[in-house]
Amino acid sequence: MVGNPDAVHPEHGKSEKTAGKGEGAVSSLREFVQEIEAWLQKSLGNPDIPERLRMAMRYSLLAGGKRIRPSLCLACGRMLGASLDALMPFAAALEFIHTYSLIHDDLPAMDNDDLRRGRPTNHKVHGEALAILAGDALLTDAFGLMASVTFPAERVVRAIAFASACAGSSGMVGGQALDMEYTGRSGVTLEELRHMHAGKTGALLRAACVCGGILAGADEARCAALSRYAAAFGACFQITDDILDETGDTAALGKTAGSDAANGKNTYPALVGLEESRRLAVGLAEEAVAALTGFTGPDAEFLKALAQSLATRSA
Amino acid sequence: MVGNPDAVHPEHGKSEKTAGKGEGAVSSLREFVQEIEAWLQKSLGNPDIPERLRMAMRYSLLAGGKRIRPSLCLACGRMLGASLDALMPFAAALEFIHTYSLIHDDLPAMDNDDLRRGRPTNHKVHGEALAILAGDALLTDAFGLMASVTFPAERVVRAIAFASACAGSSGMVGGQALDMEYTGRSGVTLEELRHMHAGKTGALLRAACVCGGILAGADEARCAALSRYAAAFGACFQITDDILDETGDTAALGKTAGSDAANGKNTYPALVGLEESRRLAVGLAEEAVAALTGFTGPDAEFLKALAQSLATRSA
Repeated sequence: MVGNPDAVHPEHGKSEKTAGKGEGAVSSLREFVQEIEAWLQKSLGNPDIPERLRMAMRYSLLAGGKRIRPSLCLACGRMLGASLDALMPFAAALEFIHTYSLIHDDLPAMDNDDLRRGRPTNHKVHGEALAILAGDALLTDAFGLMASVTFPAERVVRAIAFASACAGSSGMVGGQALDMEYTGRSGVTLEELRHMHAGKTGALLRAACVCGGILAGADEARCAALSRYAAAFGACFQITDDILDETGDTAALGKTAGSDAANGKNTYPALVGLEESRRLAVGLAEEAVAALTGFTGPDAEFLKALAQSLATRSA
Repeated sequence: MVGNPDAVHPEHGKSEKTAGKGEGAVSSLREFVQEIEAWLQKSLGNPDIPERLRMAMRYSLLAGGKRIRPSLCLACGRMLGASLDALMPFAAALEFIHTYSLIHDDLPAMDNDDLRRGRPTNHKVHGEALAILAGDALLTDAFGLMASVTFPAERVVRAIAFASACAGSSGMVGGQALDMEYTGRSGVTLEELRHMHAGKTGALLRAACVCGGILAGADEARCAALSRYAAAFGACFQITDDILDETGDTAALGKTAGSDAANGKNTYPALVGLEESRRLAVGLAEEAVAALTGFTGPDAEFLKALAQSLATRSA
């Protein structure tokens, strides 16, 4: 139940480890989501943004997504010593990027989806041209947000470089291009599917975790652990997404269930069956938890519990 | 003749000022364009970029544009003490951004253009979906290029923030949104037209000039002068673009002449007539040159000569 801010709350995932002042506690997704929503609500206030463009950007940005990427960034960064306030513009930037990718993916020339997060897609409401521009603007503004954080400049530059690499031609956009190429094609292998998803879904989740670490000043080894966590988390997330598309219902998902099959998408259930997909998801959630061995405190416990909740999510 | 790399060559714009070792000399657009083309040719070599996406990106990136934005960045930065090599990734990033904006502007949902730089537009060759993604990837990768430069990190962060503000919702994309809104609408004022163009065309030219200065470590006053130069340059550029669309021919322009009128676009010639448009262009070129009073050397002379050549360009 990643979609529910209450899913990971203090009652879950109590830690037996000594975790400083937060011993036994776990941060909650609800806390992160509230902070993020409040911040996003106040964003895009620049009076120089043309009003229609601002409305199109806000329509999708404030559609109540799960806020997984910014939450991961905030949790990873705070786990390593940074404050939520300092991390927030960068975390929000990742949600800007995620949002732009959804707007563009839904376009008629792409997945041609009419429904997203329970509402008509951006182009259905604002028209195709403005939807394209709203996506472009969210993506561009994201890097301005990243450059606005107050961490030491060397870290900021490194984090921006990492986020760009994850979101660009060899990351998220590359994965989306492969997804299109594979759609309707038979004979796609599990390895090709994994590689495509590592770009399309995994890369931005990796940016969220690793950039949180970079901004907090984490060393190589810790950033590598965050990267391993994120890779397993992302793969698990995608598999459960595929499973839900096949087994969930449109109302709970907020998007058209069964659209993968209808669109000839290559999915884990289609390739290895539902049962094996569920087994893979559980294994990846465990892998994510294992990557954080040695990290302690409320945010570490939150990250572990979030990964565990993924494998059994229903929305 | 901005389109011709020979247009601003050593015979033009001899300076009477003392300009150090470069006294009386002027850098040439040909020099900049050659360096930029060579750099762009070697870009996008990351083997992790899916091949079809790379081809779609290269199709537009290497279509032989005028390379005005990177040239301005290189000239402004070198004029203030930075080296071409150090500036190049940032300058190239601005061409990535310009190229993405052309790909998306040409889409059927936007201007629906079939011809660009004398060739079929990106979506005509690679399909709409891949054209959207190629644009998204060029925009995203641009910020990675910016973050890759070796200047002091504080300057890099400032330059990225500035470039994002110029290219995003309150800059270039905002101007494009206004252009769409104004298209086909009667009663658009000269002030509205100016504001729209300051975003759509002017903002990225301003990023090119000012970021060159920021990276070179220029002080506030010098950056402000570069900004004034760029603002006048951009306005002049747009007016002459409008004039050429009305008076030029398709072969020389490499794009469909007369498309502005056919598309109901608001233009300077439509609003104030051809003669007044030409007068405005000449005045703005002079304003650009005046902004650089006090700047000397080959690159200063180049920038002044380039502005002067704008007012009478034929392509």
